[in-house]
Amino acid sequence: MPTIVQKFGGTSVADPQRIMRCAARIVEARNAGNRVVVVVSAMGHTTDQLIGLAEQISGAPSPREMDMLMATGEQISVALMAMALHTLGCDAVSLTGAQAGIDTDAAHRKARISQIDRKQLQRILDSGAVPVVCGFQGISPNGDITTLGRGGSDTTAVALAAALDVAADGGICEIFTDVDGVYTADPRLVPNASKLRHISYEEMLELASMGAAVMHPRAVLFGEKFSVPIHVRHSQKPDLGTLIVPEEQIMEDIVVVGCALKQDLGRISLKALPRTPGIQAQIFEPISTANISVDDIVQTEFGDTTTIAFTVEHGDIADVKSICQALIGQLGRGDIDVEVGLAKISAVGTGMKSHSGVASRMFRALGEAGIAIHNITTSEIKISCIVDRQHGERGLQLVHDSFGLSAGDGTSSPMQSTGRGRR
Amino acid sequence: MPTIVQKFGGTSVADPQRIMRCAARIVEARNAGNRVVVVVSAMGHTTDQLIGLAEQISGAPSPREMDMLMATGEQISVALMAMALHTLGCDAVSLTGAQAGIDTDAAHRKARISQIDRKQLQRILDSGAVPVVCGFQGISPNGDITTLGRGGSDTTAVALAAALDVAADGGICEIFTDVDGVYTADPRLVPNASKLRHISYEEMLELASMGAAVMHPRAVLFGEKFSVPIHVRHSQKPDLGTLIVPEEQIMEDIVVVGCALKQDLGRISLKALPRTPGIQAQIFEPISTANISVDDIVQTEFGDTTTIAFTVEHGDIADVKSICQALIGQLGRGDIDVEVGLAKISAVGTGMKSHSGVASRMFRALGEAGIAIHNITTSEIKISCIVDRQHGERGLQLVHDSFGLSAGDGTSSPMQSTGRGRR
Repeated sequence: MPTIVQKFGGTSVADPQRIMRCAARIVEARNAGNRVVVVVSAMGHTTDQLIGLAEQISGAPSPREMDMLMATGEQISVALMAMALHTLGCDAVSLTGAQAGIDTDAAHRKARISQIDRKQLQRILDSGAVPVVCGFQGISPNGDITTLGRGGSDTTAVALAAALDVAADGGICEIFTDVDGVYTADPRLVPNASKLRHISYEEMLELASMGAAVMHPRAVLFGEKFSVPIHVRHSQKPDLGTLIVPEEQIMEDIVVVGCALKQDLGRISLKALPRTPGIQAQIFEPISTANISVDDIVQTEFGDTTTIAFTVEHGDIADVKSICQALIGQLGRGDIDVEVGLAKISAVGTGMKSHSGVASRMFRALGEAGIAIHNITTSEIKISCIVDRQHGERGLQLVHDSFGLSAGDGTSSPMQSTGRGRR
Repeated sequence: MPTIVQKFGGTSVADPQRIMRCAARIVEARNAGNRVVVVVSAMGHTTDQLIGLAEQISGAPSPREMDMLMATGEQISVALMAMALHTLGCDAVSLTGAQAGIDTDAAHRKARISQIDRKQLQRILDSGAVPVVCGFQGISPNGDITTLGRGGSDTTAVALAAALDVAADGGICEIFTDVDGVYTADPRLVPNASKLRHISYEEMLELASMGAAVMHPRAVLFGEKFSVPIHVRHSQKPDLGTLIVPEEQIMEDIVVVGCALKQDLGRISLKALPRTPGIQAQIFEPISTANISVDDIVQTEFGDTTTIAFTVEHGDIADVKSICQALIGQLGRGDIDVEVGLAKISAVGTGMKSHSGVASRMFRALGEAGIAIHNITTSEIKISCIVDRQHGERGLQLVHDSFGLSAGDGTSSPMQSTGRGRR
C-alpha cells in the first residue's frame, strides 16, 4: 500500500473551516487506498502573534526560548487536525516533532534534522491511524525543542517521506499550498504563464532561489538528496499540480522550463583593485559575515588591475558599500561604483546544458525590444541578464514568450528537442 | 539555601507587562538568597481561545488531542517568562511538564501525578538558573502529553515543592493569585471580613469546597499529604498573604476561622422510601455516574419508611429529578419533593472539634434575625445551615460577625481559647 506524506501550510489551516477541508482531503487520499502521514504548519498568523508577544518582552530573545514558544503554533494545528479527522470518522494521532522521532542538532531557530526514528510513525500507521506531525520542529540531543527555520514544514514533510521511503511503494510527498503548482513564470507578472506538469529538483532550486516562492529550496535539496518525489498542489482545488522529480524521470527535453524576475537590485562594482591572490575572499567574507546575500559575481581584468562586480538587494546596498569602502581604504587602492534600480531576468532549464542557442534567443528577445543588458551570468541550467528595473516585467514577458512557454494559444513554438511537451 | 516554588496564575501573566512584573518578583526572591523554581499557568484567556477553536471542529474532541492542544497555553507562558527573566539578567530555562519530569497516569484531561523525576530541575538549579515549568501538565507512561484538570497549576507547584522537599531547608510554595489571601468570608459579600495569617490544610479544604475559590482543593490535599507549607498571596502586591500549614503548626486556637456561602441550591427529598439495605447506593450511584455533585445528605426514618434528602446546584435539579423518578418507578413506592431557591451558610474551623457552643452560637445568630434553618449538616470542622436564598448574604454576615471574625473594629469578641489571634 503506497504511503503518502501530505503537508498543509499555514494558509491552508488558517481557521477551523479550512482545517476541516484539509481533513476531507486527507480522508480522500486514505479512501483511495493509501497510508497517509500528515504534516501541518502553524495556523495563519499564529507565528506572527507569537513573535509579537516575544518582542514585547525581549529585544533579543534567547533562541532556545523562541523555539519553545514558536513550537506551540504547530502543536495547536496538529491537535485540531487530529480532531477534524476524528470528526470525519478517521483514526488519527497528533505528534510533536519530538514524539514523531525527529532528531535535530542543537542549532536553535535553524536546526538541521540529524535523523528520524520512524518507530512511532510506523506503529501508528500499522494501527490504521493517520499520524499528524508538527512541521518545522524537532528535538535536540539534550531534549530541548528546536525549530528548523524558514521552510521548515516543507523540510519536515520531505524528510518524513524519505525516512518512510515512500518512493519504494509508489508513494509521494504532497505539498499543499495556496498556488496551483510551479509556473513557467510568476502568473501575476506574466498572465499567459503556464503550469508545469514536471520539473527537476535542480530546476526547482534555481527557480526557488530566483524568487518563485512555491517551495523552500532547503526542502527541495532534501528531496533531491533522497530522491523523494514531490507533488506541489493547491490545497483548496482538486487539480494536479507540479511534480518535482529526478531529472532522469522526466522524459521530455524542454530546454527552458521557466523564467523568473528579481527586482530592486543594485550592483556594486569594485574597480582598479590589485590583482592580489585572495582579494575575492577579502571582499566577500565580511559581506557574508554580515549575513548579506550577493549574486551574479563577475570578475574582469585590465592590465594589472581587477574589476569585481556583483548584485545585492537594494536594502543591503548601504551596508555593502561601507564594507567595501573600508576594504579599499585598507588596500590603499581601488574605486567603488554603485548602480541602483536594476532587475534580473533568468531563464532556467536542465535542457540548456546540452542545447546551444538558449542564450542567443534570450539576448535577441531583449535586444529587439531595445532593452539594454548590463550584465550576464550563467550556470549549467540558468542564464541571467541584468537590465534596468523599468524593463524588468516587459523583459520577463518577452523572454518567457520567446521560449514558447506561454499557455495555450499555439502561436509560439516551444523550444524543445523531443516531442512530448512537459506542460 | 532555601528553595521557593513560585506559582503564577493566568491573570498574573495575562499580558507581557504583567509577565515582566512577575519576573521582577522572581528576581527579588532570588536576590533575597533563595533558589527559585517557577510554575506558570496559561496566559489569561488563552485556555478559552483554545477551547473555542476545538469546539468549532468537534462536539466531543478526543481527550488526548485536547491535552495536546491545551498544553500549548502553558508552553507559551513559560517561554515568555524565561525571556522576561533573561531581560532582567536572570538565568532561566523553560520546561514543559514532560521536560520537568512530571510523570502522570494516562487519564487525559484529569491526569494524576504519579511521580516527579527531579533530576532536570536539580541540574538547572545547581547551574544557578531558574527552572520555569509549565503548570497543569505532565507526560503519560506512553509519552503522550496529559493535563491535570482544574486547579492543575496549583497542584504542579505543590507537587514540585514536595518533590524538592522545600520544607527541609526552610523553603515554601508560594501561590501568587489575584486575591490578597484567604479571608474569614468572601470580602465581596462580607465587607468587614478579615485576612487570615494562617489556616490549616483541613480548614482550607472545607472553605475551598464551600466556594472560596482561592486555591483548588486538590492542590491543598497534595500539600497536606506531603506537609508542604503554602503561601497564598497577591501577585501585584508585596504584602504577605495567608499561610496554609499543618494544624499543629498553628499555635492559636481560633474556633472558627471562616464562613462561606453557597448560593442557588436546590434540595431533593425522597420520602416514603422502603427501608431496604443498599437503597442509598441505588440513589447516589446513578447521580455520581452523571457527574453531578450532591451535598448535605440527611437521612431520617419514619416507621418502615425512610426519607433521604440532599442538596444539588440549581443547574443539576432537572437531571437529578429524572434519575430519582426512574428509581421510584423501579421501586414501586416513594415520593419526590423538590425545593429550589436555597442557600447554605457554613462555619469552618479545626477549633470547633474540641469546642462546644459553635453550633448554638450560629443558630442563635440566624434565629435572632428571624432566618429559618431548613437543614443542618456538620463535619468535624464544619457546620452548615440551609436557609432561603434571600437570607443568604445577610445570614453569612451575621454568622461571620457572631464569631468575632470582623476586621479591626474591636466591637466583637473573637471566639477563641488562647490569646494569640490568628488574624
